[in-house]
Order: sequence, then structure tokens, then C-alpha cells
Amino acid sequence: MSDAAVVRLPEPLRLRELAAELFDALHDKTFDGTGITRECYEEGENAAMAIFREVAERHGLKVRLDAAQNMIVSLPGDDGTKPALLLASHADSVPQGGNFDGGAGVVAALLTLIRLAGEGTRTAVPVRAMVLRGEESAFYGRANIGSRLLFGTLDPKDMAAKRRGTGRTLRETLSAAGIDVDAAAAGRRMIDASTVKAYVELHIEQGPVMIARKFPTAVVTGIRGNLRHRSIMCRGEAGHSGTVPRWLRRDAVFAVADLLMRLDEHWMRLLERGLDLVVTTGVIGTDPDQHALSRIPGEVAFSFEVRSQSFETLEAFYELFRSECRAVSDLRHVKFEFDDRVYAEPARMDESIVRKLVAVSERLGLPTETLASGAGHDAAVFSNAGIPSAMIFVRNANGSHNPAEAMDLDDFMQGVALMHAFAVEGP
Amino acid sequence: MSDAAVVRLPEPLRLRELAAELFDALHDKTFDGTGITRECYEEGENAAMAIFREVAERHGLKVRLDAAQNMIVSLPGDDGTKPALLLASHADSVPQGGNFDGGAGVVAALLTLIRLAGEGTRTAVPVRAMVLRGEESAFYGRANIGSRLLFGTLDPKDMAAKRRGTGRTLRETLSAAGIDVDAAAAGRRMIDASTVKAYVELHIEQGPVMIARKFPTAVVTGIRGNLRHRSIMCRGEAGHSGTVPRWLRRDAVFAVADLLMRLDEHWMRLLERGLDLVVTTGVIGTDPDQHALSRIPGEVAFSFEVRSQSFETLEAFYELFRSECRAVSDLRHVKFEFDDRVYAEPARMDESIVRKLVAVSERLGLPTETLASGAGHDAAVFSNAGIPSAMIFVRNANGSHNPAEAMDLDDFMQGVALMHAFAVEGP
Repeated sequence: MSDAAVVRLPEPLRLRELAAELFDALHDKTFDGTGITRECYEEGENAAMAIFREVAERHGLKVRLDAAQNMIVSLPGDDGTKPALLLASHADSVPQGGNFDGGAGVVAALLTLIRLAGEGTRTAVPVRAMVLRGEESAFYGRANIGSRLLFGTLDPKDMAAKRRGTGRTLRETLSAAGIDVDAAAAGRRMIDASTVKAYVELHIEQGPVMIARKFPTAVVTGIRGNLRHRSIMCRGEAGHSGTVPRWLRRDAVFAVADLLMRLDEHWMRLLERGLDLVVTTGVIGTDPDQHALSRIPGEVAFSFEVRSQSFETLEAFYELFRSECRAVSDLRHVKFEFDDRVYAEPARMDESIVRKLVAVSERLGLPTETLASGAGHDAAVFSNAGIPSAMIFVRNANGSHNPAEAMDLDDFMQGVALMHAFAVEGP
Repeated sequence: MSDAAVVRLPEPLRLRELAAELFDALHDKTFDGTGITRECYEEGENAAMAIFREVAERHGLKVRLDAAQNMIVSLPGDDGTKPALLLASHADSVPQGGNFDGGAGVVAALLTLIRLAGEGTRTAVPVRAMVLRGEESAFYGRANIGSRLLFGTLDPKDMAAKRRGTGRTLRETLSAAGIDVDAAAAGRRMIDASTVKAYVELHIEQGPVMIARKFPTAVVTGIRGNLRHRSIMCRGEAGHSGTVPRWLRRDAVFAVADLLMRLDEHWMRLLERGLDLVVTTGVIGTDPDQHALSRIPGEVAFSFEVRSQSFETLEAFYELFRSECRAVSDLRHVKFEFDDRVYAEPARMDESIVRKLVAVSERLGLPTETLASGAGHDAAVFSNAGIPSAMIFVRNANGSHNPAEAMDLDDFMQGVALMHAFAVEGP
């Protein structure tokens, strides 16, 4: 493919138009009626991948898939022999999510390559774009599937994880997508890490800090890890709501409410001590086949998640959590049954790259603020695999994982400018 | 029908055998494969009614149906002109329920009449048995249909209530059963209250108190009413679980947990002050279409129910509940949206009858314990219609509304002895 007029000299204005066009196309192809759904390794993610492939090829870039079915985009002159700077993000989304979580970073990487190709710029090291799959945990309860496959760090047990809605296993899904699931289960690497010099990911901020503090771009210093249980069952005893007095009740809902308020109390105290911590029970429910208005709930299932930049804080809070479960069990005569604990380790961003990104920001007249990432990112997987990694955040209103994500295109283009300038200079 | 050998002098032992025979027959005719189903005004309830009619007629008792198709059983010498003591309970059951909820009270009433007839005892006032229909709310969402029809207190709107499973309206069902549905909808009475001197119902305890405190029989002092919301929505704001700090969260699940623990605190304090109160949230759930492990829950739906013997306690607790909702709304930046409040009024049992039942218990060497009924009963309808009413509870394991109901026949026969001795003496 070639379109000389575009390839030769895309003006900054053209890039902005191209960004708008891509975000529109992504929205149109993956809008589910309420929000954006790009289910990993299936229709939604594939639709996004097709858009990325089309625009890359239209601008003369080379596109291939790696063994984990992630997409690698490179410049026409890149023979693939030298370690590259990877500009990356992910194509998938949560169900009923927003258009920019993942999508913004991929578009930024592609625009950077398109600009480098169009302007014929020589960069210090080869620059490639990588479109990762399966970053969100929403469908299989496991995040960073695409990047973990690369480094062989997917837990073999995760292969049995079932997709929400259909119950299809991750093994079946990956196999259907053409991935060697036996290699994946055996933890075999699907990337030669020596081909990667560094990893940089642009992403919308998923929290409210940059809006509150009024800066359009920021450089990320670290990524929170988390400890999770997908589904803990609290079991008490069902009974007629009118006939069992308080002292004989084993009410599972009151027990979980008690547990959550104990955790809330610890959380507040630890924040006062300056620790980095967020705690969430995103899922809770009595069993629709058994529950009733006039029935003491005999069981309730709930999820648990704690996130922190600090490994020590994660483990300490998890111990508090288990200890409070024991206290509530004793007090309210219930049992807690735990599924597997899932751990995503926190990650430090590479100090040298962070310094360079801050310096480039200063040169471009952008804010030089640094920030921790509350959400997990594939950058953490690359970083924990020993690859110097960093992230650029772009201001975004209304958080992420919801249809109201709102990133200003001007802010985004400043992030792209920062990424481009850094890519020229090299890590 | 007459079987002189039985009618003349049924020994206490014969009554016990007859009780066992009746409970076996009820089980055999209305076992659904899992539990007992006696759907009101239909096959299951009719089968139970047929068993009751047969045993009454076999023992020389007179049987007729009233205008609401409830069954009235009277002694051979009763000409129906004097106000009677009604010994009553209901023939229906919930789906997959137990054999004794309702059935035990009817069998007790029939055994009492059979013994009075057999022994030729003269009682202070005429004693009749009444077999009520449609006490359980399970099929039409409305309890006490048979007794409410008698007093014209069925809500006209209830006529449109649809049967679970088939969707047939209550109007259609009642009409098919031969009941004047226009009279029912107009609230016309189907009983002359002056023919009823008092109402006494034996029932299994549906809670665990008598098992825990080891008494086989108890006298009921009042029947708890309730205030309910079927589904309250707590709305906060969804967000990424890693990126929104605690102070910016509007977490609906933490808000409801906070609310429940506030209510639990009030509940404990009110119990310490001697008030009668139970509080239940039987149903809670985040929306499976939206919730995720890594998403701050933006909304959660839950039910609320408070039960008490005291109207004042119900209303006072309800006010506390609404006030705590406001406090939690302010503190945690959520909103509570309430559906219609549903009210079932409490009922006091007649103090004079309660005292007599306690005195008779003492004379028979039975426990003189009194207890509140947590569940609703037709006795509440009679009491609220101005008829002196009372109840006898018989110990029962495993609660009710389930196939595991377990009443010991010895306990039951003690309850029958209490009912009989009271019936002889009169209210």
C-alpha cells in the first residue's frame, strides 16, 4: 500500500485529523449500544486490530503478528535486526467501557510511526509500535494476557479461567486465536527480549488527579500492583427472616458488610500514615435462585481487591483482610471460602527514561509532573521482565472502564508530540 | 359415616396414631419430588382438604365450606347458633415446602374435635375447626387470602396478582374455585364475626428459639408485622478500581455496607432496651452486566425488611433507616432510590386467652414460656378484625418453608393436649 501524498509529509494538523478519524472508527466499530466493548481475542478486539492494521498499511508501515497474536508495526526501513524502542498499548476494552483506554496509546504509537515515516526521520534506535491483546481482566479475570504470553508469565492455572457470559476457557479462546497454548501453559517465552531496547506506553489517566491538578500530560513513575480474589463465598445459614432472632442468626450479608467496614477503617488509618492504597469490592451478590426478601441470606459471593505501589503494603493489607475475615467468622458464625489469590506485582518505571521524558516535556513546554499509575498496565509486565519501561499519561475526565471517558484531542496531541520527540532521541 | 369403635372412645394413643396417619397421608398426596407443594385453590391444597374432610366425616364430624371455600368442621351436636371457639390453621404450603407448616395446626384442630366427640365432652362454648386456604404468599405474593376474604380485607388490586409459574390471576383462580370475586373485590365480608367467640391456631415454630431453649410448646403473645422495600437502589459512581483515591470515591457497595452496619448497631441497642425487632437484607447484588473485579461499583440493589410485634418499633426503626440512608448519602456521596414501601401490620394476641393458655400449660406440666411469632399467620387477620385470637407453637427444627421441617410427634401431641384442655375450658 502507498499513498504518497500522506506518507510523504503529514502535517501536524493531518495527524490530528487522522487521530480523530481513528477514534471515530474505533467507536463506530466497537460501540455496543451503551459503551465500548472490545472483548479480547474475539470480535471487538479483532475489529480494533483491523482498524490499526488498515491505517498502518495505508501509511506504508509494515505489519506482522507475533506468536501471541499481538501486532508489531515497523517502519519501512526497519530490518528487524536491532533492538527497538517499543511504543505500545492494548486493543481490548472492558465490556461497556470507553473508547480511549488502550486505544489512545495504540493510536499515539501509530501516529508517531506515521510521522517518523512521513518525515523520514532517523531515530537513535529503531522504533516499533506494538498492539497488545487481552490487557483487561474483565473477561477472564486475568490481566495482561497478551504481554504475559510474551514473557511466559501467564499462570498455567489461568488457562482454565472461564470467560464471563459464555464460560469458554482461556485455553479454548487462545487456541482458537492461533496461539500455541501448550507453549503458553508451559511458560515458554514468545518474545526475544534482546530485540527490545525499551518500552513506552501512552495511556489516559484513569483517575481524577490530572483533571484536578490541571495538567494535560504527565510522566509515570510506578504502577500499582494488586492482590485479588475473584470470588469469595461467605457462608452462614439461611432462615425465615421473621423467626430467627439476632443472636441465632448467621447472616452472610451482614457478615460481609461488617468485613468491608473493618477494611474501610484500616484503609483510612493507613492513608493517614501516608501509604499508597485502594480497596475495592466490585462484585457482590446473593444467589438469585435462593435469595428472597424474607429469607436470611445464607450465602453471598464477593470479590476483593487491594492495590498499592508497594509490595509491603499489599501484603500487609492482605494479612489484615484475612485476619478480619477470621474475626468476622467468629463473631457472626459464618465461614469464608477463598478462591485462588491472584497477584499482580507493582512495577517501577525506568528512572533514566522517566528523566528523559521529563526533560523532553520541559523542552516542549509541557508539564514536567510525575505521577503513579493506579491501574495496572502492560508496562508493568515489561518492566518486571527486566525491560526498561515508562509511561506517558494524558488527562482524561470521568475515569476509565466506562462510556464517559473524555480525553481532549488537544491533550492527546501533546502526548503524541512528547512520544514523538522522545522516540527521535531514543531511550 | 360412622365407626362406633373409634368415635366412642379414642385413647390418647389412638389420637397419636391418627396424627401419624394423617401426616403420612398429607405427605404422600402432596409430595412434589423435592418437598411438599399445596398450591392454594388448586390440586395440592385440594388434596389436603380432601384428607381433612375424610377423617372428619369418618369420625362423625360435620363438614361444610364457607363462602370463601374454607372448611368448617363442627361437632355432631353443634347447631351453629352460638358463637364458637375456632381452632384453625391452613391447608396450603409454599412450593417445595414442608409437611407441618399449616398442616400441623389443622390436624391438631381435627384431633381435638375428634377427641371431644369421642369422649362426649361438654365444652364451655361450641368448638369448631376451620381449615383456611391460601395463607402462604408464595403463589400470588399476597398472604392470608382465605382469611382476608372472610373479612373483606383483600386489597382489590390483589385480584390482578399473577400466580407464579402460570400467570393466572388471583381473580381467575378464586372464581374457578367458586368464590364470588366481585364481592371479594368490593371488600364484602364473607363471615358473620358474631359467630366467632375466639380464634386459636396451633403452628410449628418457624424459628430456632424453642429448639435452642428446649421447650416443646409455647404460647404466642403477638405476631410480628413488617415494613419492607423489595428493591432499593444505591447509586454512586463507577470507576477504575486502581485509580480513584478513597476521597474521590462514590462506592455504592461500601455505602450499603456502611448502612447495614449502622442498622446493625441500632438493632443491637434496641434489643438491649427490650424491643422486639429483626432486620434483614435478604437480597443484594451488583449488576452482572456492569460489575467487575476491577471496577468501583457504581450501583448496588438491595432489599430491606424490618419486623416487630410493635407498630411503634416498626415505624421508629424505619425512620432510623431512612435517616441513616441520608447520613450515608452525605458521607459517601451516593443516592438511595426507594421503591414502594410495603406494610403488613403486627397483631397482638388476646391477653386473656394467652393467660389461660399459660395456666393450662402449667396444669398439664408443659412449659409456660411465651414467644413472639416472627412469621405472619391468619391469627393476625382475625385479631386485627377484632376477634380475640391466640396461638400455640410447637417446637420444630430446621425452620419452615423447606422440606427439612422436623416436628417431633411427641411435641405435637403435647400441643394437641394443650389445645384440647383449653377448648374444654373455653376462652
